[in-house]
Amino acid sequence: MGLTEVFVSEVFGTGVLILLGAGVVANVLLVKSKGLDGGWLLINIGWGFGVMAGVYLAFKSGAHLNPAVTLGILSSGADEYAPGVAVSFGSTVVYLAAELFGAFLGACLTFVAYKKHFDAEPDEGKKLAVFATGPAIRNYGWNLATEAIATFVLVLVVLSFAKTPSGLGPLAVALLVVGIGASLGGPTGYAINPARDLGPRIAHAILPLRHTAAEPVPAHSASLGAAAEPTREPKAGSSDWAYAWVPVVGPIIGGVLAGLVSQLIF
Amino acid sequence: MGLTEVFVSEVFGTGVLILLGAGVVANVLLVKSKGLDGGWLLINIGWGFGVMAGVYLAFKSGAHLNPAVTLGILSSGADEYAPGVAVSFGSTVVYLAAELFGAFLGACLTFVAYKKHFDAEPDEGKKLAVFATGPAIRNYGWNLATEAIATFVLVLVVLSFAKTPSGLGPLAVALLVVGIGASLGGPTGYAINPARDLGPRIAHAILPLRHTAAEPVPAHSASLGAAAEPTREPKAGSSDWAYAWVPVVGPIIGGVLAGLVSQLIF
Amino acid sequence: MGLTEVFVSEVFGTGVLILLGAGVVANVLLVKSKGLDGGWLLINIGWGFGVMAGVYLAFKSGAHLNPAVTLGILSSGADEYAPGVAVSFGSTVVYLAAELFGAFLGACLTFVAYKKHFDAEPDEGKKLAVFATGPAIRNYGWNLATEAIATFVLVLVVLSFAKTPSGLGPLAVALLVVGIGASLGGPTGYAINPARDLGPRIAHAILPLRHTAAEPVPAHSASLGAAAEPTREPKAGSSDWAYAWVPVVGPIIGGVLAGLVSQLIF
Amino acid sequence: MGLTEVFVSEVFGTGVLILLGAGVVANVLLVKSKGLDGGWLLINIGWGFGVMAGVYLAFKSGAHLNPAVTLGILSSGADEYAPGVAVSFGSTVVYLAAELFGAFLGACLTFVAYKKHFDAEPDEGKKLAVFATGPAIRNYGWNLATEAIATFVLVLVVLSFAKTPSGLGPLAVALLVVGIGASLGGPTGYAINPARDLGPRIAHAILPLRHTAAEPVPAHSASLGAAAEPTREPKAGSSDWAYAWVPVVGPIIGGVLAGLVSQLIF
Repeated sequence: MGLTEVFVSEVFGTGVLILLGAGVVANVLLVKSKGLDGGWLLINIGWGFGVMAGVYLAFKSGAHLNPAVTLGILSSGADEYAPGVAVSFGSTVVYLAAELFGAFLGACLTFVAYKKHFDAEPDEGKKLAVFATGPAIRNYGWNLATEAIATFVLVLVVLSFAKTPSGLGPLAVALLVVGIGASLGGPTGYAINPARDLGPRIAHAILPLRHTAAEPVPAHSASLGAAAEPTREPKAGSSDWAYAWVPVVGPIIGGVLAGLVSQLIF
Repeated sequence: MGLTEVFVSEVFGTGVLILLGAGVVANVLLVKSKGLDGGWLLINIGWGFGVMAGVYLAFKSGAHLNPAVTLGILSSGADEYAPGVAVSFGSTVVYLAAELFGAFLGACLTFVAYKKHFDAEPDEGKKLAVFATGPAIRNYGWNLATEAIATFVLVLVVLSFAKTPSGLGPLAVALLVVGIGASLGGPTGYAINPARDLGPRIAHAILPLRHTAAEPVPAHSASLGAAAEPTREPKAGSSDWAYAWVPVVGPIIGGVLAGLVSQLIF
Repeated sequence: MGLTEVFVSEVFGTGVLILLGAGVVANVLLVKSKGLDGGWLLINIGWGFGVMAGVYLAFKSGAHLNPAVTLGILSSGADEYAPGVAVSFGSTVVYLAAELFGAFLGACLTFVAYKKHFDAEPDEGKKLAVFATGPAIRNYGWNLATEAIATFVLVLVVLSFAKTPSGLGPLAVALLVVGIGASLGGPTGYAINPARDLGPRIAHAILPLRHTAAEPVPAHSASLGAAAEPTREPKAGSSDWAYAWVPVVGPIIGGVLAGLVSQLIF
Repeated sequence: MGLTEVFVSEVFGTGVLILLGAGVVANVLLVKSKGLDGGWLLINIGWGFGVMAGVYLAFKSGAHLNPAVTLGILSSGADEYAPGVAVSFGSTVVYLAAELFGAFLGACLTFVAYKKHFDAEPDEGKKLAVFATGPAIRNYGWNLATEAIATFVLVLVVLSFAKTPSGLGPLAVALLVVGIGASLGGPTGYAINPARDLGPRIAHAILPLRHTAAEPVPAHSASLGAAAEPTREPKAGSSDWAYAWVPVVGPIIGGVLAGLVSQLIF
């Protein structure tokens, strides 16, 4: 299987995952939507079965859909990312790029699907929440810990599937994501996937979302160096870049750790 | 397998799909029903497992249950609609007719199952909502886009099942429909199936639903030509024919596109 | 497999089905319970996975758990009720008796599990609702139609399982029951099983439920002959015997009809 | 398979089970969490799919994750706890110890994941409820009966899996736990697992949870001898040791009974 095929496969898979995942948040949050105030379980279900849909589409390439999974497989010492796709620097880059690009595209499609509801929504925070995660209580260190723990569970169990004769395939991943969202999504909204957060956040920054008071967030606040006010709430209409590193770094830590641990226990 | 068998199989499958699908909406919307105000996830579950029930009944004919699936298979370049059923003009017509007729029959059975609740319901809009979809924000262009995107996901993933050794069969379709409803159903109520909307809408127009103020909607308003007031809300008691083309054309666009794309990626 | 084994198997299966099914209603309705006001979907989930648990326990005897299934298999013209269990008058009686007795026992266990909540519950109607179904709008003819339609779907799809290579087994039945409950449970509370309603109703009449104003319902009102007031609401504390025939006769009609139809379409 | 491997396997499995299970309670109860007031079904889903995750991780050791399951297998007369792990005094102790230790570790991870929400939560009862179960109506005898009945169902159905060609594996256990929680969790919060309750309760007593009015509960009140006030509510901030024996003894009774019954019916 060529890397072009891998790229296309992961773009489609991650794209549909984000289309459905961001879609359910739009459904629950945006004004006049039929699922308005549908509750946390509805959000978990939408993300979980969005993963299932993406896994079916990207089956050929192993359906990573998530840099934390790709890097977890890498750190687990595996030889292949999927049948016929050797682990290498090149293939790793292709997976990561496809996941990020697919997530960006999926978020754009969610924007199209809910266009009139974005137009009608007065709350800038809800618009951002459709695209990117944000913490319930802003504290970068603890938020990072939550994302790392939740992703550790995700990747470790996903790695266990290959050792288990359960035959549930895409369904098992879907329900695992439902469960992690239900259980560990409370503090940070469970990115558990760097592409899932970063791709749509870029889309949020680019798409015509009619931001009110759209002052750009100062670039330096996105870095860890903004220590003086590390936990301030983002301005209305901003893409909250100050937080953006947490759902990237936390899941990577969790995924890599899961790969290492999997070498010990499986 | 003869086309008569295909017809009967798809009528039963689509009929049960609509009986359960329209049923859950009746349960959530109609006065005094035990599931009143049961929420969006309950609606998603009812439709999803209604699909599962229909797939079991129509297994022999491939369980299309949906013109967007039939036309998606057609545009995917497949040779057969089901084992032993060649793709042809005749077989295509039989699938489409059976799906529409089954959907009509299923809606009539929902009417019987909830007869006393229809009698007691004062809100004509809720009665219509049991049968046909309607937009949360009426804008035919964007509503069309939402239906096309959601159906694209449905048909593309369904087409991927044949390439995937998951063995989940009817369950995977069911959960996919739950997920699409949770995620992309907010703006238009996810017809994602021309027969699902048109068949029950015809039933709504024919059945004795005690419409109040049942003035017929002028025939010309059902056409695209009614440009002067393209997005006005339907009159109480009407079957909202002005909107009826959207959940037919949108899903067909999405399904055909999915068939074409499937030739590229699978 | 001997009929004694069939009896024990079906008693355990139906017993656990009712223990969990009646249990979830107690959880949602009875005062101070942790699932109080948990909603219709929670009730559907409890019944559905209760069926799954019962199917596992009664696997050897085919896990009918429901006279409508037994009679549906009979009317479908099958030779066996389960591998090694021939259809005969004797085996039919054993299945029906085991189902009814198991349902009675299961309801008694639910009573034990929720004993303190029954003691604390002031509303006699809620206590009865844990055991037996009742109509949202009392009209015996239409209530009968709803029960017959819902059971027809249940038994027809269950009969289709044997013809379908899905391999989902107990899960498919569980989700089918979730779906039927979500979709068609609104008007009558979906007995869809004569034993499920009659066994627990007998338990309700016998168990020490501290009925307030526990006037016995006149025996003749349980017959169809009570035509003068056929749809009056039951007295507080009564077991509503006037309605008890509906969830017995309706499901039998639906199940037998499904068996006959299955001869035509499978 | 060596007993060290069994220990590690069960520690990981039970740890993840409790991390997700306690996590969902934290999500639903603790102030500012995104799943706040998410409802009983959300709690059932989190626990159920937490079990699924744990079963995948501990597949090699049979994934008991629960002393009631271990003792149920023991009383069922089986030769092995898992393929290659003989039933013996030593292996039994290893399973029980691993389950308890894993549950303790999992609860500590939940504490980390929800650290800022524990800090912000003013209600000591909610903090305890994340870790340990408690009765809705405090009555040790009836609470014990509820736990025994619910665990009996759990273990009996789990033991039936080995006799049933369903192939659902981890999913069946997950949905069974969802169902038992939905149906029988109302009175006591369904520990149905001595380790699930005792391990996290110990964690609650040790972890820095900023208890207000943190008076230690007198040691003797944890014994059955505290007969004078056997059902008094625990003090704010206490770990409610007076109740702690119920979710240990009740599940053991239920599990052992299920093992004995399984010898008769399977």
